[in-house]
Amino acid sequence: MAKQEDDFKRVISHAKEYGYVFQSSEIYDGLSAVYDYAQNGVELKKNIRDYWWKAMVQLNDNIVGIDAAIFMHPTTWKASGHVDAFNDPLIDNKDSKKRYRADVLVEDYVGKIEAKIEKEVAKAAKRFGDKFDKAQFLATNPRVVEYQEQATSILKRLGRSLENEDLADVKKLIEELEIACPMSGSKNWTDVKQFNLMFGTKLGASAENAMDLYLRPETAQGIFVNFLNVQKTGRMKIPFGIAQTGKAFRNEIVARQFIFRMREFEQMEMQFFIKPGTQQEWYEKWKETRMKWHLSLGMGEENYRFHDHEKLAHYADAAADIEFRFPFGFKELEGIHSRTDFDLGSHEKFSGKKLQYFDPETRESYVPYVLETSIGLDRMFLAVFANSLREEQLENGSFRTVLKLPAVLAPTKAAVFPLVKKDGLPEVAHQIIEDLKWDFNVLYDEKDAVGRRYRRQDANGTPFCITVDHQTLEDNTVTIRHRDSMEQERVAIADLKGIIHKAVDMKSWLKKMV
Amino acid sequence: MAKQEDDFKRVISHAKEYGYVFQSSEIYDGLSAVYDYAQNGVELKKNIRDYWWKAMVQLNDNIVGIDAAIFMHPTTWKASGHVDAFNDPLIDNKDSKKRYRADVLVEDYVGKIEAKIEKEVAKAAKRFGDKFDKAQFLATNPRVVEYQEQATSILKRLGRSLENEDLADVKKLIEELEIACPMSGSKNWTDVKQFNLMFGTKLGASAENAMDLYLRPETAQGIFVNFLNVQKTGRMKIPFGIAQTGKAFRNEIVARQFIFRMREFEQMEMQFFIKPGTQQEWYEKWKETRMKWHLSLGMGEENYRFHDHEKLAHYADAAADIEFRFPFGFKELEGIHSRTDFDLGSHEKFSGKKLQYFDPETRESYVPYVLETSIGLDRMFLAVFANSLREEQLENGSFRTVLKLPAVLAPTKAAVFPLVKKDGLPEVAHQIIEDLKWDFNVLYDEKDAVGRRYRRQDANGTPFCITVDHQTLEDNTVTIRHRDSMEQERVAIADLKGIIHKAVDMKSWLKKMV
Repeated sequence: MAKQEDDFKRVISHAKEYGYVFQSSEIYDGLSAVYDYAQNGVELKKNIRDYWWKAMVQLNDNIVGIDAAIFMHPTTWKASGHVDAFNDPLIDNKDSKKRYRADVLVEDYVGKIEAKIEKEVAKAAKRFGDKFDKAQFLATNPRVVEYQEQATSILKRLGRSLENEDLADVKKLIEELEIACPMSGSKNWTDVKQFNLMFGTKLGASAENAMDLYLRPETAQGIFVNFLNVQKTGRMKIPFGIAQTGKAFRNEIVARQFIFRMREFEQMEMQFFIKPGTQQEWYEKWKETRMKWHLSLGMGEENYRFHDHEKLAHYADAAADIEFRFPFGFKELEGIHSRTDFDLGSHEKFSGKKLQYFDPETRESYVPYVLETSIGLDRMFLAVFANSLREEQLENGSFRTVLKLPAVLAPTKAAVFPLVKKDGLPEVAHQIIEDLKWDFNVLYDEKDAVGRRYRRQDANGTPFCITVDHQTLEDNTVTIRHRDSMEQERVAIADLKGIIHKAVDMKSWLKKMV
Repeated sequence: MAKQEDDFKRVISHAKEYGYVFQSSEIYDGLSAVYDYAQNGVELKKNIRDYWWKAMVQLNDNIVGIDAAIFMHPTTWKASGHVDAFNDPLIDNKDSKKRYRADVLVEDYVGKIEAKIEKEVAKAAKRFGDKFDKAQFLATNPRVVEYQEQATSILKRLGRSLENEDLADVKKLIEELEIACPMSGSKNWTDVKQFNLMFGTKLGASAENAMDLYLRPETAQGIFVNFLNVQKTGRMKIPFGIAQTGKAFRNEIVARQFIFRMREFEQMEMQFFIKPGTQQEWYEKWKETRMKWHLSLGMGEENYRFHDHEKLAHYADAAADIEFRFPFGFKELEGIHSRTDFDLGSHEKFSGKKLQYFDPETRESYVPYVLETSIGLDRMFLAVFANSLREEQLENGSFRTVLKLPAVLAPTKAAVFPLVKKDGLPEVAHQIIEDLKWDFNVLYDEKDAVGRRYRRQDANGTPFCITVDHQTLEDNTVTIRHRDSMEQERVAIADLKGIIHKAVDMKSWLKKMV
């Protein structure tokens, strides 16, 4: 646990030190759960977005993109269920003035019971050794059975109360369990209130005619309201998809874990419109396709797993997450959801307009079903960044910090160094940059010894370092050093573009998906 | 005027019909002054953004990017002056309930006086013919002199009242001039009130500890507050620039002209940090550089002009617009502003933190001056789209609608057609797509006669149409048709990629800047 925390702290400080992620408005002491992407971060983020967009839109002739506004007509959020159901039940402790999610307080309490069960299991396992039968122990040990029943009964009651919106009973439950504020130890609680997670604002100048707007809490609805316009003007035939990347906003109470859960974040979503009845087949297909996309980046098959949802959202008839091994454990990176006709059907009802697809072959009209793939761009950024950051011991016993980003995503593709700051070497290095810069992000560095420059670019995630030395003046060759293997080769200047291109070309990386 | 309006209407309807721009939330009858980019629009917008980013960031080794959040600490907007000074003076007519910008009402009144002067000038010019001396006439004709004095005195008083925030006098002026509501003809006005153009929202869950936030009204401040972090972690030396693209929001009272002035819009800004005293030189340099960028797209030198500001914003010591000939006349497309040390200095004051650059050569620290280039991405989209839309009469007397987008920006680079839907031609067309799609956005179309398919792609802005016919089966050649010239050539399938690449490669287009 401590190791995990240390690793994660190192990720965060490396992200700042090497210009990937800054705290937002840092000179004003920051803004909670909001971050800015710095000079390297913006390029990594852009490369991930492009990699997704190319895979989704450019490579599939039945998927097109859109870019809907963050502002949408407020009825959109009535139809989607967000006005009524996108709430957290909150409770305040009157003494500490601290605010909590009521359900999380109860779940934490249950967590403690579960820890007790684990402890009993561990004790028994130690006592019985090889003969220990966990299933039997759980089913028969009186104390453990009691714990389990207690936990189950609490969770059932919590679930029922939340479902019935009986918030008074949630408070009663907290009081009955004698849950205390973790901060003050006080049991002096306010009532539980529903708090909507959407950010509100007002459009228009006067109080009388201002319109209450929300900042969109998800990008998906921008696709649904445009579904028919895209289908008609784009002459799309089912099955087809609409992809979108863009900002969404959630007024999270407990926003944490760096850029993993932010109040302002970016999604990459694709809604695939299909014939009702074919959803199971497309659900499997998209789970597979999306996993292939992730694996194409070469970050290790063992770092991914599927998690199928048992409890489904109101709009879904099947849902799975692609989980990734973050520094704090396996967590959701992407969701694949079979959303049925919930959204389009609901927009039909609220708008009074038909949102149906006319099938030219069967000459029938119907509301399509929807299969969604939804990935957090910031989470993907964190996955790539954290997974790439390594401490390596070298042969001579010293250590290096290296950011082994997939070369296709690296912000800077190559750094060009003159071995020394004289004898015309800087001029040759600049000439090489003048030639390469049209194709790649490249940088020049002449400061410090070459070894230190290598370390700097390792930590920066730059796949190639090119060094111009005196031999270059004679035969137009340079050394090119590979970030991951640290191998160096002598190559002709004329071959540089081809070598870099081969390593970073998005096309070749995407072909690994197929 | 009527012609202009018609042209502009055609632009708007073509943008919808061909999947470039949709009204936002159209199924809910739209949201005023907010638009969504549709399946072609999103690609055009992305290509413009990339074209700018590549020119700014990739090609200049002293310019880096960032991507700051829309949410910023609220003190940012105190420091920038937006809380106090980003206001419009508004007045309501009590009878029509219509709201107006008070200054615009007065300026429209003055506009009518100026129209009278123009009329007198025209009459005199006609009367005196060749002998007419306009300057002398303006200086001596008693009626005209009176008009001029009247106009000048009104504008002076308006300016003075606004500067002193004497809104009561602005109302008095409107009453004295007997300005009537254009809608109702009534002169029954409310008081004039300042209205801040920033959208507000609240961060955090409870009324007590919620923080008032604004949606950023410009992206520039996200660069200023990050200036020192970028400079230090990126080891930047002055002069250097930070570039950013992103959304900004303004609660405009009079938002109109399609995507020209929206409430939610996207900016592409670059702040260039320089040594105080060098601003004039960099101002000229960036005016020239930015104009070259525009001209590289080949949309006609005659459609651009500089407009130097006489009245400067509180932060500027020089400012110019690059104006473009929109369907409704020459209007601002981009601004180049010499912002002095106003922003960094103000953030120093409000944050209590030093925002100074240490010059390693002179060993002095100073607050840099800033040269800004700021372009509206949506305006640039409108400029490109409107300028490209043409009605052309063909040799046979018929007309075609063609969207002559610069090929580098076109959403789809090539459409591939089988001449007929049989004999294996569709299969060959699909094979060509399978090969081309890794490099370009391409589409397949087999519906209708080839002539109609050409027209469709002309209207869509697709630079190339590739037709597979029976001869293709024999010799692996196809016809490639050029959108603008409508010329057709017979070429080998193997040469297609090279032909398209040559026409659409961003690199080659950007090289026209140099």
